[in-house]
Amino acid sequence: MTRTYLDWNATAPLGQAARAAMIAAMDIVGNPSSVHAEGRAAKGLMERARAQVAEAFGAQGADIVFTSGATEAAALAFSGRDLHCGAVEHDAVASWCQLDLPVDRQGHVAISDPAQSTLQLANSETGVIQDLPEGLAVVDATQGFGKVPVAFNWLGCDMALVSAHKLGGPKGVGALVLKQGLDVAATIKGGGQEMGRRSGTENLIGIAGFGAAADAAAKALADGIWDEVAQKRDYLEDLLADGLEDPIFVGRGEDRLPNTMNLITPGWKGETQVMQMDLAGFAVSAGSACSSGKVKASKVLTAMGYSDLEAASALRVSIGPDVSKEDLERFAKAWLAAYARHKKRAA
Amino acid sequence: MTRTYLDWNATAPLGQAARAAMIAAMDIVGNPSSVHAEGRAAKGLMERARAQVAEAFGAQGADIVFTSGATEAAALAFSGRDLHCGAVEHDAVASWCQLDLPVDRQGHVAISDPAQSTLQLANSETGVIQDLPEGLAVVDATQGFGKVPVAFNWLGCDMALVSAHKLGGPKGVGALVLKQGLDVAATIKGGGQEMGRRSGTENLIGIAGFGAAADAAAKALADGIWDEVAQKRDYLEDLLADGLEDPIFVGRGEDRLPNTMNLITPGWKGETQVMQMDLAGFAVSAGSACSSGKVKASKVLTAMGYSDLEAASALRVSIGPDVSKEDLERFAKAWLAAYARHKKRAA
Repeated sequence: MTRTYLDWNATAPLGQAARAAMIAAMDIVGNPSSVHAEGRAAKGLMERARAQVAEAFGAQGADIVFTSGATEAAALAFSGRDLHCGAVEHDAVASWCQLDLPVDRQGHVAISDPAQSTLQLANSETGVIQDLPEGLAVVDATQGFGKVPVAFNWLGCDMALVSAHKLGGPKGVGALVLKQGLDVAATIKGGGQEMGRRSGTENLIGIAGFGAAADAAAKALADGIWDEVAQKRDYLEDLLADGLEDPIFVGRGEDRLPNTMNLITPGWKGETQVMQMDLAGFAVSAGSACSSGKVKASKVLTAMGYSDLEAASALRVSIGPDVSKEDLERFAKAWLAAYARHKKRAA
Repeated sequence: MTRTYLDWNATAPLGQAARAAMIAAMDIVGNPSSVHAEGRAAKGLMERARAQVAEAFGAQGADIVFTSGATEAAALAFSGRDLHCGAVEHDAVASWCQLDLPVDRQGHVAISDPAQSTLQLANSETGVIQDLPEGLAVVDATQGFGKVPVAFNWLGCDMALVSAHKLGGPKGVGALVLKQGLDVAATIKGGGQEMGRRSGTENLIGIAGFGAAADAAAKALADGIWDEVAQKRDYLEDLLADGLEDPIFVGRGEDRLPNTMNLITPGWKGETQVMQMDLAGFAVSAGSACSSGKVKASKVLTAMGYSDLEAASALRVSIGPDVSKEDLERFAKAWLAAYARHKKRAA
């Protein structure tokens, strides 16, 4: 059966640029910490990737500390601190912070003390983009980087978290970006790599993939590829809306990611929708994928004031440049048919 | 110029099995935490790699927690504890422990309280293999796994650290192996992956490479490949000994890794030897590669009672199955010529 992947916010497919860079990096034998030619070649490859990430993220001159992903970057940024955040943050952030900042119906978080707070650039479930105040301690840019224009050097924050696999790089690679002059206490200690901030032999192949993916993502964004994605997403919403009486499209009309649709169908569990769509050949999600297969009412949606019933009935479709209008037409047809069956059963 | 890589303890070249597994994994689009078919395929690939690592490491039934390397596994094992160790441990271990256990001239560490101590299986600089007492809290098996027979389930320890890139897998992947029933407090928190012990979307491509590399390494070991490596290493030592008056081969005659040679030439800096050999086309090392290019007197050798002068004059040659006798003959010739020039200058 043809499979159609519509879960890009969980992870994007590995892009061609990243794949090629990773395969090329497989021939670089050295340890980046070794002083001989093989080690220097490895180091050179890593520093090239660092420059690519800095350039794509508008973080020229900032420090890029490569990690095993945004989750590890969060541990490095938040460990030993006690920052404030809203309940719409990803678990990798929320696990470290006080969830005491108010969230409004549109998903926006009200910040009172930026220097003691963290705020995401964009929400992974709803796509809602935050107005980031100046002076934030940490910005989680994981879901926005590569999909919307963002420049670390214009954010006015101290640190940011980014991830490779959300923008076409490999899973298991990310970075903590720090304003120059700032520092963090290492949580992974040893050989003193990454200027003492994060020890351990570096994931050279993955880092090469991150660099290439970030570079390709920045170019695609500049070329307007994600405007086309937004048009396709809007087209899907229109297709679905035509078959529904009172569709609740979370975040529609708000500033949000170009690729994300979040639809609430009260009383029809998101989990059930995901399974039915899976059987029909479509990969979609009922919320964040990151909680190891657990499916429960979205904390993001309840924080926005949706009821538990509504929050448990959310479906997230997140697409990317490779997804065609025809893919979305097939999806809309399959979903509306499943919805009709659901209504019939419920009647 | 032909390059000859003789620094396998810093990092082994990526093996064919790992390369093929990684390239295949690039086509697996899903996030292992997603419940749809793409997610399940990713999860399946990861669990296959976990079984391969468990099998190769004789850790069937134990818990394998994938990390970004042995250094992160060490942080997970040691954080919040205060174990004892000898000064021959790698920085990734030593950074967390009390360096108060005695080390003898042969590099062996005397353990008084195994349950409160950690000990390496084999030393990365000298290759010296430890007699591991029963009941150790943690064994750092990074440098031994893949080169000498070892089975976690026979070690009688609580936990072990392993790494992919020392046995032909990619850099930036490793694992903490735990006896079943034990637990550790997560240091990287968030989505709850790896049974809550280590959050973050998994490095799927790297983990696939680790599994394949571990499997291939176990087979090569069973096929006697590393006995041949030991013969080649001994051959190199004989070639060098023939040109020296009183050669100091650290660990020779001891139980040690089959691939490691550590030669002290008092008064001739290891750093200088590494640079001269690099110019001649050979990648070798003056000690651990992991300290980000820093070169100083080996702490391992001073812990064994060698003087600072001796410890700063060590050269490590570490080889693998791909290295031929001819490679070693060329190296011996180049090194002995450089040594003759050094003696002439010093005279």
